[in-house]
Amino acid sequence: MSSPIVATYLLETAFSLEQAAEIIVSEQSTGTFMPIAGETESLKERHRARILSIQPLESSPFPSLPGAKIPSGSKGEYKRGIVQIAFPYENIGPSIPNVLATVAGNLFELEELSGIRLIDLELPEAFSERYEGPRYGIGGTREMTGVYGRPIIGTIIKPNVGLPTEQLRLIVRELASAGIDFIKDDEVHGNPPYAPLEERVKTAMEEIERAADRTGKKTMYAFNITDDIEPMLRHLETVQRHGGNCVMVSINSIGLAGVAHLRKHAQVCIHGHRNQWGMMSRYPYLGMSFAAYQKLCRLSGVDHLHVNGLNNKFYEDNASVIDGVRGCLTPIRDESDRVLPVLSSKQWAGSAPQTYRELQTVDVMNIAGGGIHGHPGGFGAGFRSFVQGWEAALAGVPLEEYAAGRPELRQALDLLG
Amino acid sequence: MSSPIVATYLLETAFSLEQAAEIIVSEQSTGTFMPIAGETESLKERHRARILSIQPLESSPFPSLPGAKIPSGSKGEYKRGIVQIAFPYENIGPSIPNVLATVAGNLFELEELSGIRLIDLELPEAFSERYEGPRYGIGGTREMTGVYGRPIIGTIIKPNVGLPTEQLRLIVRELASAGIDFIKDDEVHGNPPYAPLEERVKTAMEEIERAADRTGKKTMYAFNITDDIEPMLRHLETVQRHGGNCVMVSINSIGLAGVAHLRKHAQVCIHGHRNQWGMMSRYPYLGMSFAAYQKLCRLSGVDHLHVNGLNNKFYEDNASVIDGVRGCLTPIRDESDRVLPVLSSKQWAGSAPQTYRELQTVDVMNIAGGGIHGHPGGFGAGFRSFVQGWEAALAGVPLEEYAAGRPELRQALDLLG
Repeated sequence: MSSPIVATYLLETAFSLEQAAEIIVSEQSTGTFMPIAGETESLKERHRARILSIQPLESSPFPSLPGAKIPSGSKGEYKRGIVQIAFPYENIGPSIPNVLATVAGNLFELEELSGIRLIDLELPEAFSERYEGPRYGIGGTREMTGVYGRPIIGTIIKPNVGLPTEQLRLIVRELASAGIDFIKDDEVHGNPPYAPLEERVKTAMEEIERAADRTGKKTMYAFNITDDIEPMLRHLETVQRHGGNCVMVSINSIGLAGVAHLRKHAQVCIHGHRNQWGMMSRYPYLGMSFAAYQKLCRLSGVDHLHVNGLNNKFYEDNASVIDGVRGCLTPIRDESDRVLPVLSSKQWAGSAPQTYRELQTVDVMNIAGGGIHGHPGGFGAGFRSFVQGWEAALAGVPLEEYAAGRPELRQALDLLG
Repeated sequence: MSSPIVATYLLETAFSLEQAAEIIVSEQSTGTFMPIAGETESLKERHRARILSIQPLESSPFPSLPGAKIPSGSKGEYKRGIVQIAFPYENIGPSIPNVLATVAGNLFELEELSGIRLIDLELPEAFSERYEGPRYGIGGTREMTGVYGRPIIGTIIKPNVGLPTEQLRLIVRELASAGIDFIKDDEVHGNPPYAPLEERVKTAMEEIERAADRTGKKTMYAFNITDDIEPMLRHLETVQRHGGNCVMVSINSIGLAGVAHLRKHAQVCIHGHRNQWGMMSRYPYLGMSFAAYQKLCRLSGVDHLHVNGLNNKFYEDNASVIDGVRGCLTPIRDESDRVLPVLSSKQWAGSAPQTYRELQTVDVMNIAGGGIHGHPGGFGAGFRSFVQGWEAALAGVPLEEYAAGRPELRQALDLLG
């Protein structure tokens, strides 16, 4: 018999934590609002979910979510706690879409809860048989880019919308000629009428191949193929036909089912962008934690996964970003399912020392938009300054000192330092 | 030139509403955190999103979301308002996954916002060319079930997990013989190892066809085919091969891209279950409103869409349920894109009068789990009592009066009234 699917929740309720956990168990395995004929004891025994543990936390005087019911005689106190529930594997089978309907289904709407967040998820072995996980992961991405001993450093094409394809050509030419490791499309740039993806792929790959012939280094380009299922696979074909080695998708736009489908067809790296993630995670007493989400993304097959950068322009604080990076780098079954965390937003040469100090790893992708495009020496100098920032960080040499004789880093520090 | 994509947001910010709206415009069309070379004025003119309107609401002394930045000199007041933004169609093209990356992308994470919710969305004509909308909708579902002049009434197979297929046979036999309009699987029941979908489809359809031969009425059964893309299409084939005329999916498990993909392949009704919806909607200052969500679901191709029932077991109040029903019944382009709202949770014969009084329509699907399975006279009597409840509601006759000479309704009232 398979081990169960174990979901860990942060709960808040005006009932007891035990009652709240029982309601989840009943709602998401056997049970309706009144006793019914077919629900025998032996059926319940085999198929009912089980509460594994309940760990109380400090209560709150206020409900975190609206519409929560208060039991009669309640003192108006909202109990909080961490609750682990085991759902029999046999109820569901090895299907992430069906797991989600159980562990993250209607329960967010239950009136007995004033707060509920899925904070972790453990899936049994059978899932690893159906879902192949990252095809390339960290090792494969290093092999394809030829970058070892430091982060994979890249940029986002800017302006993120409106760029004519012939201007894209010039940008890619300059970046690829400078030997940049990685380029990606912006997530708001997919396949717009004014610059169709096929044209952009053809143009960018021409420049990348031409630069590779000269420099011996082939820049990885993550083309944003986010779209409906069939067009997405057509875009994938386009990228593969033109010699591209990476595609990007907005994970929450195509769904985890879309990612798993792409993984079955793609011979290239899958760069996973998590836009829309804030919608299901920013409020602390609702939604899902990154700890659960990243496991599902990895199992579904992404090779790279966005995590924000330190000191980013978003609401996420550094402790949470660091947790996210560590999550991506922690094996689920083994080393092969680790994925590259992608540090992005307000990144530049000057971010490297703190990033390295806090993370103590080079197994990240570090990408800069303005930090490379805004460099006074041009895109190539922007890339080199970012590499130099990381070299300084790894050598433990202060940036100001390392900038001596390195004009690209010097210029970056003068502009942004 | 196409009309733009118009997104309406509820915003909360410690900045001015104008500044907050400008930040969204910049983040989601042109712009990075510093000025860059390629971002010319003419490019901005063509591709920049535009603020259409800003309507202030009452401020809040507290931020609704964590991590929100406060401008220097702020009085600690969080301004709230409704902001409409137009995104040029040319930036995106007719792709829902790419629209989502723009109108609902990173912006939920912006530190300048302490609250953000997408409350409405208008898409230009080109989307209606790519996305076919409901194939059957309300009219087609009525034609297939032969039910006119009252809601389509149905039930959910219970117990929702653990039922052996041979017991399912007996339940379907009784329900279909009683001429029930509609049966659906529970959303937590997909394709589990102990009762594979193919077996269940075969068994249920045998009983439905056999009953139809006797009664002349073919019960519609929404088989839960939620799964990864390829298995989902296999399940669809199974249902169609065995003469089924409806499939159900957990919309948020397969993604809107999955729904649109299914719509392209399915010759049967698509019953859309919105489980996980609470995750992106329950907190009022984050996520998405049903007004926006239901439009996306309909465009993607569902024929039926869950909305909760009045006085349900969830947190949602009746005003919100009523709004949801009206949304589904309001044409986007024309009558053909209206879909059947599915009223579910704590429904039974006795709910009908209030439901009809509040909604003033019969164009709903009304389904009961316990309300039919728990009827002392059996499933058939449960169904008949529910129809009688609606007959009374439509005739404007009190239930107690209508129950005279109608033992099924009488028993239901005695048990639950």
